[in-house]
Amino acid sequence: MDQIPESLRQLLPPDRFQASDSALRAFQSDGLTVFAVQPKAIVVPRSTDEAIEVVRWCHQNDVPFVARGSGTSLSGGSLPHADGIVLALNRLNRIIELDLKNRRARVEPGVINAQLTAAVEHAGLYYAPDPSSQQVCTLGGNIAFNSGGAHCLKYGMTSNHILGMTMVLADGQLVNVGSSSGQVTGPDLLGLMVGSEGLLGVALDITVKLLPRPESFHTVLAGYRTLHEAGEAVGTIIASGLLPAAIEIMDQLSMQAATAAVGATYPQNVDAVLIVELDGSAETVRAERRVLDQLLATSGATEVLVAADAEQRASIWKGRKSVFSAVGRLSPDFIVQDGVVPRSQLGYALQRIQEMSDQAGIPVANVFHAGDGNLHPLIMFDGRQPGQLERAEALAADIVGLCIELGGSITGEHGVGMEKRQFLGQMFSGASLDCMQRLRVACDRREIANRGKMFPSAEADALGMVGLHPLEQAGVASRM
Amino acid sequence: MDQIPESLRQLLPPDRFQASDSALRAFQSDGLTVFAVQPKAIVVPRSTDEAIEVVRWCHQNDVPFVARGSGTSLSGGSLPHADGIVLALNRLNRIIELDLKNRRARVEPGVINAQLTAAVEHAGLYYAPDPSSQQVCTLGGNIAFNSGGAHCLKYGMTSNHILGMTMVLADGQLVNVGSSSGQVTGPDLLGLMVGSEGLLGVALDITVKLLPRPESFHTVLAGYRTLHEAGEAVGTIIASGLLPAAIEIMDQLSMQAATAAVGATYPQNVDAVLIVELDGSAETVRAERRVLDQLLATSGATEVLVAADAEQRASIWKGRKSVFSAVGRLSPDFIVQDGVVPRSQLGYALQRIQEMSDQAGIPVANVFHAGDGNLHPLIMFDGRQPGQLERAEALAADIVGLCIELGGSITGEHGVGMEKRQFLGQMFSGASLDCMQRLRVACDRREIANRGKMFPSAEADALGMVGLHPLEQAGVASRM
Repeated sequence: MDQIPESLRQLLPPDRFQASDSALRAFQSDGLTVFAVQPKAIVVPRSTDEAIEVVRWCHQNDVPFVARGSGTSLSGGSLPHADGIVLALNRLNRIIELDLKNRRARVEPGVINAQLTAAVEHAGLYYAPDPSSQQVCTLGGNIAFNSGGAHCLKYGMTSNHILGMTMVLADGQLVNVGSSSGQVTGPDLLGLMVGSEGLLGVALDITVKLLPRPESFHTVLAGYRTLHEAGEAVGTIIASGLLPAAIEIMDQLSMQAATAAVGATYPQNVDAVLIVELDGSAETVRAERRVLDQLLATSGATEVLVAADAEQRASIWKGRKSVFSAVGRLSPDFIVQDGVVPRSQLGYALQRIQEMSDQAGIPVANVFHAGDGNLHPLIMFDGRQPGQLERAEALAADIVGLCIELGGSITGEHGVGMEKRQFLGQMFSGASLDCMQRLRVACDRREIANRGKMFPSAEADALGMVGLHPLEQAGVASRM
Repeated sequence: MDQIPESLRQLLPPDRFQASDSALRAFQSDGLTVFAVQPKAIVVPRSTDEAIEVVRWCHQNDVPFVARGSGTSLSGGSLPHADGIVLALNRLNRIIELDLKNRRARVEPGVINAQLTAAVEHAGLYYAPDPSSQQVCTLGGNIAFNSGGAHCLKYGMTSNHILGMTMVLADGQLVNVGSSSGQVTGPDLLGLMVGSEGLLGVALDITVKLLPRPESFHTVLAGYRTLHEAGEAVGTIIASGLLPAAIEIMDQLSMQAATAAVGATYPQNVDAVLIVELDGSAETVRAERRVLDQLLATSGATEVLVAADAEQRASIWKGRKSVFSAVGRLSPDFIVQDGVVPRSQLGYALQRIQEMSDQAGIPVANVFHAGDGNLHPLIMFDGRQPGQLERAEALAADIVGLCIELGGSITGEHGVGMEKRQFLGQMFSGASLDCMQRLRVACDRREIANRGKMFPSAEADALGMVGLHPLEQAGVASRM
């Protein structure tokens, strides 16, 4: 860390630079722990002005940087660049303004997702996008990856909840995109920026939408003998015109993991559970509940458990949200996959994944946002057994291939990042990739912002790989 | 029209070129009839390949072009360029594929908005965005201007209903943006393209979302003694957590116009009516209706009329959607303004507009998407009276200024186009405009696509103005 250039050091007070061993360990990887790269410097600005200074310095000096929140993208999206600096935004964590009447908040990028809701719940409001990592992930990171969450079925992804932002582009220009009224005027720069994985600039002053907390919830766990039946039930619910707040599926292995980790309980002798949540006014929920009850009664569910109170509801969600980390108790190593298939292909996709899993002799746990067709297969293996890692990697790649084949996407919410760069060319033509690249260069002609990510191009060679495993085509979360 | 270059003529069969007087009249202006410009050529391709050929020819020969549907943007957005060609897409009007199971359709850009719904209603589906011009406007035009409509309060603008598109960029590159699953991967080019007013490229193969037609509707007309009370009722409804499909307000002048034009009837002795529509399953609507009834009962409404059947519902909407054209019966000339204010400022904005109107001695009819804060003041004047035009124009500009002052937007859905170029700089900083311009050049380095629109820059001088009135700062729809 004595590599920090003097001209950068002079920009900010000394305590803005981190060089301790623990800081290095904390920042060399992100949630996708298979990659680790030591950056030239870690800078932790205390104000947006300081952050702007750093970005401008990077542009002037042609130094790559990665803006980082809590590093939970799971795609290696906030991995450092070996020739660059990490711009850690965790200290830019002020809620600048709460405008409860207009139901909006202005925040800095380092505010934790769940903290925003905590700050407004006294007024009966909340911030809707709820990634499983919401207790730790930052709103800036949510914007970079257009994060989803269980309730995005009804409420939409992060892009539906950002009204406007002030950003510093990678070339140091300060721009305002969107507007606090949420009205888009001119080309939708906000639309372009949300989900651009840190390749265009850094959001500094963010205006988000707040929603009135639903008056009433109705949360059920329905057990099915087969995963296929659970998948069919999803289709039936959606076809009925009902739009639940969330529709999730967990398979047997996921249930086992959640039980082992947080003591969650599930119906006996079932291969899959469906979680359905309705929300809204008490009257609406009552009405929709009658429709849902009828649909579930004829869907082949062997048992339907209803959350009797807020505590039971919380416990259902705790089980669901624990699965990613809980799978570590069942398997020494696992790969978290993230892909999307059209909802009507859900049953077919799950069956194919099961066949692939059987063929590879590698178990796969399935837990996913069923309403959106967003799969999260957890590929379980033991890296100490020769050949298992390679078979798990191959299986992960095959699942991505399946999603593309079915007209879906290589990522639902974890991002392309470092992990899935080489798949982008399978989804988009050369002309489309070229257009993305030209738009990027329009904001960042030196390509310093999150260099090496997203594009399947040669520049990635600049990344110094000191990975724990020699993986590229799949994200391995080792004992995560 | 003998100005058509030989190399362009050779590209397509002769019947693709229009040169008759009636074609010239039809294409020299759009819905904002104050501007009229004669283009070098009008080309009507019969296939997407032909359209691509024309765009590539334009790029190679540095000839500006404007892609045009039905020309209903009301901002002069599809006005020709004097040195360029009009690419009329009305013959690209095939519905390419209906995928009813996955609730989506692939269409060409010239398909009329209402025709898509007509093609799928046998399956209980519809296409949600419903601009007042939906009987004539095209989906390609809806995409260019990110069109709204009365029901966008609940269902969102056009951008929420486009899953993916194949586009030809202005430089002739063919790109695919978005995906048929609706999942965004990589930078959201789809988000950037929808609403870019034809400055980046031309959508050719469009995949849109279809929604299940709501089982049940509940539509009410509530009368209020003052516009202010009606505005307050909107706030109360939204604050309750209820999300109606539509919340519209019409003032006295708008009611008079609708009555004169289509015989619509309204409560007596009121200054404003609120139209609220609930939709959803029969049970949900019943439940929400009880909530709404209670809210309206305590909101100061003097009378509440409920649509008893589909016919009465249609008649309420017919009245509402007729106002723009109906105002022509009350006033020789009028300007349709389009601006947005934060919803909480609605009452204040209406009061200020009334004061401005009184001061100028120019009546203003108000009819608007109240739930979205999207105002449509209709500024009524008589162009034959000396000074009236100028006062009307000044009033229109003042209203735009008010929207900006209150933190809103210069346009809700009609676009920036030709009409509001000079206001864009009041909403966005120089750096933001510069960023937009750089993104544009990344797709169109010759700036041929809809040259002269949107940006408040010097290039507009290239437009040959043969306007009926010397208006620039406001859109005058004369006897529209």
